[in-house]
Amino acid sequence: MKVSQNIKVAVDAVVFGYSNKLKILLIQQKFGVNVNKWALPGGFIKDTETLKQAVIRELKEETGVKANYLEQLYTFGAINRDDRARVITISYIALINPKNYFLKATTDAKDAKWFNINNIPKLAFDHKEIIDKGLERLKAKINYQPIGFELLSSKFPFSDLENLYQIILEKKMDRRNFRKKMLSFGILQETSEFQKTSIGRPAKLFKFNETKYKELERKGFHFEIKFT
Amino acid sequence: MKVSQNIKVAVDAVVFGYSNKLKILLIQQKFGVNVNKWALPGGFIKDTETLKQAVIRELKEETGVKANYLEQLYTFGAINRDDRARVITISYIALINPKNYFLKATTDAKDAKWFNINNIPKLAFDHKEIIDKGLERLKAKINYQPIGFELLSSKFPFSDLENLYQIILEKKMDRRNFRKKMLSFGILQETSEFQKTSIGRPAKLFKFNETKYKELERKGFHFEIKFT
Repeated sequence: MKVSQNIKVAVDAVVFGYSNKLKILLIQQKFGVNVNKWALPGGFIKDTETLKQAVIRELKEETGVKANYLEQLYTFGAINRDDRARVITISYIALINPKNYFLKATTDAKDAKWFNINNIPKLAFDHKEIIDKGLERLKAKINYQPIGFELLSSKFPFSDLENLYQIILEKKMDRRNFRKKMLSFGILQETSEFQKTSIGRPAKLFKFNETKYKELERKGFHFEIKFT
Repeated sequence: MKVSQNIKVAVDAVVFGYSNKLKILLIQQKFGVNVNKWALPGGFIKDTETLKQAVIRELKEETGVKANYLEQLYTFGAINRDDRARVITISYIALINPKNYFLKATTDAKDAKWFNINNIPKLAFDHKEIIDKGLERLKAKINYQPIGFELLSSKFPFSDLENLYQIILEKKMDRRNFRKKMLSFGILQETSEFQKTSIGRPAKLFKFNETKYKELERKGFHFEIKFT
């Protein structure tokens, strides 16, 4: 097949994390015209790997993290998005709990670090645009899929879940209604454990029951959180 | 920049149309290992065009249609999806009204034809999978964005809109509630025209008021149709 094309293909990952604030995982470039600039973890696809395998490999090499939740986001193909060559990049969203990983930058990355989403440095390429697209998807998706749990510890006080939604959606909500709705689904399980707090009474810990969720989903259940 | 990569990049379009049934626009391949097989319109990206420009060009060349509504769908990158080479394809959804176009196949296409979505021939590559993904997106999206109007004539009897939703969502709905809800948004405009019908009284024609919709959208209005 003769196709004259001079285009390279890459993947990039928008990795969201949460610890009281919404965070994003960035790497500092070690080489190239963007040396020292911060950017999304990512890189060129190998001929023998799928898109998803490429993202997983790049994430591991450049940051040391392994995401359970990985979803294709959008493909960016503006002609001059990379000064070096025509590069089309397929972006992915990943959700992880920062506490579970020790960051470790190797290969093309000099450093890997979590940044508060409201305080990110100037980024290389069109990576700011990719993050904006990722944020838009995250905000839409936590309303109708229980993906928020990926960002929390396996056991968490209810207030963490509440705070997560408020932070991501950037709005205050009716806490009573939120709690009532969340518990009504039957996908949150009370544990017998408590989190010690410095003030007030200890908070009961909950966990997300994924098996139950999958079972309900098969029966046609739709997770849906609505704020007005 | 030295990147050793032997990957080609293409675009493919899932073009939906509607005339009593939901239709999809397919082309018959003129060349290659898949000669005579039906496939989605699409082809390789030129170095100097964006992804969207590539889809628009391919659609024009292979089918003669020009879509007003074009949205990126998903990027498919399985290693062996094309026997000839490693080809990654960025798929798009397009919505058009078949009545507005005379189909005309040129370049790589031998023929271009509308097929009922429930009666498509065996397709080349992974194009069936791409259509399934497109259908999933269409079904989700008509619930929260007024994209259905792209598929109708500019003036239509209310029953056409009703039928469109029922066909795409593959379910019967409460017609009274649907009508009430649709009209409550204020984005449908009654015209003074009627459609002659062979039986019963003539049906009043409506049109979608896009200006009004954009205005409402700016004020935070969310279009949402819900069936239970």
